[in-house]
Amino acid sequence: MRTLIKQATIVTMKEEEPFVGDILIEGDSIAEIGFAIDAAADEVIPADGMAAMPGLVNAHQHSPMSLLRGFSDDLKLMEWLDRKMLPAEARMTPEDIYWGAKLGIAEMIKSGTTAFADMYIHMDEIAFAVEETGIRASLTRGLVFAEDDGGRRMAEALELIERWSGKAEGRITTMLGPHSPYMCPPEPLSRVIRLAEETGVPIHIHLAETKEETVKIRDRYGLTPTEYLAHAGMFDRAHVLLAHGVHLSRKDVRLLAGMRGGVAHNPVSNLKLGCGIAPVTELRHQGVVVGLGTDGAGSATSVDMFEQIKAASWLQKLDYGDPTKLPARQALRMGTIEGARLLRIDGSVGTLEKGKKADLILIDMRKPRLQPVHRLESLLAYGACGADADTTIVNGKLLMRGRKLLTIDEDELLRQAARRAVRIVDGI
Amino acid sequence: MRTLIKQATIVTMKEEEPFVGDILIEGDSIAEIGFAIDAAADEVIPADGMAAMPGLVNAHQHSPMSLLRGFSDDLKLMEWLDRKMLPAEARMTPEDIYWGAKLGIAEMIKSGTTAFADMYIHMDEIAFAVEETGIRASLTRGLVFAEDDGGRRMAEALELIERWSGKAEGRITTMLGPHSPYMCPPEPLSRVIRLAEETGVPIHIHLAETKEETVKIRDRYGLTPTEYLAHAGMFDRAHVLLAHGVHLSRKDVRLLAGMRGGVAHNPVSNLKLGCGIAPVTELRHQGVVVGLGTDGAGSATSVDMFEQIKAASWLQKLDYGDPTKLPARQALRMGTIEGARLLRIDGSVGTLEKGKKADLILIDMRKPRLQPVHRLESLLAYGACGADADTTIVNGKLLMRGRKLLTIDEDELLRQAARRAVRIVDGI
Repeated sequence: MRTLIKQATIVTMKEEEPFVGDILIEGDSIAEIGFAIDAAADEVIPADGMAAMPGLVNAHQHSPMSLLRGFSDDLKLMEWLDRKMLPAEARMTPEDIYWGAKLGIAEMIKSGTTAFADMYIHMDEIAFAVEETGIRASLTRGLVFAEDDGGRRMAEALELIERWSGKAEGRITTMLGPHSPYMCPPEPLSRVIRLAEETGVPIHIHLAETKEETVKIRDRYGLTPTEYLAHAGMFDRAHVLLAHGVHLSRKDVRLLAGMRGGVAHNPVSNLKLGCGIAPVTELRHQGVVVGLGTDGAGSATSVDMFEQIKAASWLQKLDYGDPTKLPARQALRMGTIEGARLLRIDGSVGTLEKGKKADLILIDMRKPRLQPVHRLESLLAYGACGADADTTIVNGKLLMRGRKLLTIDEDELLRQAARRAVRIVDGI
Repeated sequence: MRTLIKQATIVTMKEEEPFVGDILIEGDSIAEIGFAIDAAADEVIPADGMAAMPGLVNAHQHSPMSLLRGFSDDLKLMEWLDRKMLPAEARMTPEDIYWGAKLGIAEMIKSGTTAFADMYIHMDEIAFAVEETGIRASLTRGLVFAEDDGGRRMAEALELIERWSGKAEGRITTMLGPHSPYMCPPEPLSRVIRLAEETGVPIHIHLAETKEETVKIRDRYGLTPTEYLAHAGMFDRAHVLLAHGVHLSRKDVRLLAGMRGGVAHNPVSNLKLGCGIAPVTELRHQGVVVGLGTDGAGSATSVDMFEQIKAASWLQKLDYGDPTKLPARQALRMGTIEGARLLRIDGSVGTLEKGKKADLILIDMRKPRLQPVHRLESLLAYGACGADADTTIVNGKLLMRGRKLLTIDEDELLRQAARRAVRIVDGI
């Protein structure tokens, strides 16, 4: 199967400036990028007036929470969690998880996201949804060690890794998911780190999302949450995807220098829950990779990565009182190649270049909101929204064209979501 | 002409909860809102799965700057202004202003905005664009008194008021526009205030957008910018639309208590230029009306009011570390009826009720991003974006339906915008 995209304005997310040209896809990969490619193709996509860029990488998600979008906004964090989210999640059946994940994936494909990192439960269901819909994902079974479950969660985590790593034409990868410093005492934490080191499987963990977490960990261990993980050897021994990293001291930031992996910044979720501004600029100064994530729709409402790109840039400009901070290109890199580095898939996606997997999107610029085009990257970072994605391609396969989903029955999905949502929250 | 909207989920922006019902429009007004209206109509709009709400009111705009969108992002404020915006604006001909305004209006209609307050130059051109396109606007000729222009600007301001107030079927209103404390010395400022008092014409003015302005005014007059205006008697003697109000002391906030008019908060522009967070919660505690604006697209990139609604709420939650601050309904009110109060058109628009002018929009909720609907107002405030507006009605007239503009030739508009933009910035 050969697909030829003609006359797009190509933003490779490498060094060069955007240019008008063609992209040839063969099978699952980019076979050629150039000014005018003369090749036979099974499918030709005219892309005049469209920007072609790498698909967005959502580096922190809980996709089934899309079923809980808008259910409990404007509440105190603990009320949101204890009185709304946890009781509702406890009601979710494996089938709900499947449909919730599919709802999240549908939204992601429709807003230009081609890969995501997910930490949740009933991961088989999410893996089925990923396999079916054609998106790319790094899947993690969240591990809380609050009470003795006879090793059930850990067994599920290992099963997930065993069963799904490299599956779905290689679109699925896996991680180990110790939930957070406050859910993981030293002993089980060390066990997970040892396992990660032995198997080479990366770690996906929440870190320092709230001030309360910092207080809690300091009370327990006399350490910051970051120090707690560092002392356990996590950053020396594994590739680590740290979600949030809002409450980091200057020393914490230095501790993260040189880490493999990096930080998934979730600006919209952090704003909506009143958590604070992550020290993105300081982290980047220390050479720490910072990608972007949405967190679950239960907090963020929408999982539109273009919103994260905007909000990430806005927050650094605000924090420094300086509009030059986190400029457009850098914010776009965080939403693409830097996110791919966190998922450890940057060797195969995250930029548009020959030989990489064809994970890319077309953004339709032919509308009042995105004209005139003085500087394309500015418009993509500060002007575009998810609804401007016209075409989404993952692993060489068209998942959306002309805003129509090609691997998901949208009507059936919305019916399922509506019906299940009512049952899940009934009486909560 | 009678238009009947059937089975929308109606958000009136008054006290009641959203409900499914019909809206009958007769001529330019809402004739009836109810559960099931049985009436003959020239046009029936089936709105099952759509939310009907008052059109958004953009309380601070410089619409022709849409031609400069994305032209000078990520620059220091003074560099942005002096080296990019001002030279480019100086190149704009009256015809450019007309097309720039039309581009801004097209974007507004397509993102659910039905009224806006504009301060700029060559106001006749903007008035023509408003008249033609069918949107509602409050127009203001910006007055800077930096050098003696022989009264030219003031004459233009008076001409605008004389020529356009109440025109275009009453859709156009006007204000007096002393630009800002730093552009208006005491003598001309007093003159404008006197004129506003005598004629009853409201004032539209920038206030305390940057820290630098506060320093400048304190150096000149030993006052904060707000004190400077208060001492000139502005708040006692006129209805005032204050744009920005970011750098307000606690005393400044108290000085504004009881003012007629209120503050237009421009969160995205303030973020992008690194200006800071306006004390929206404190202003509201003092009973000051706070509406929302986008500022010009030259700073904000997009003039999507749904972005302002989100960002306004996010910033208060961030500022207080408290997710209960500025909840969904309040943010939506700021984007509709509170904005209308700033424009002094709240008697006729800003809520959906019988007898008011029919300025309303339909938001299509039937998509993965806006499902399931646990709480409609949460989704409208935190989930919706401008591109979800399906239908825009102003003064009873359809300006957009099914996302197609009905009063603007979009292809011609984009051609004009692209061509003019290139010339305007050439060499800058």
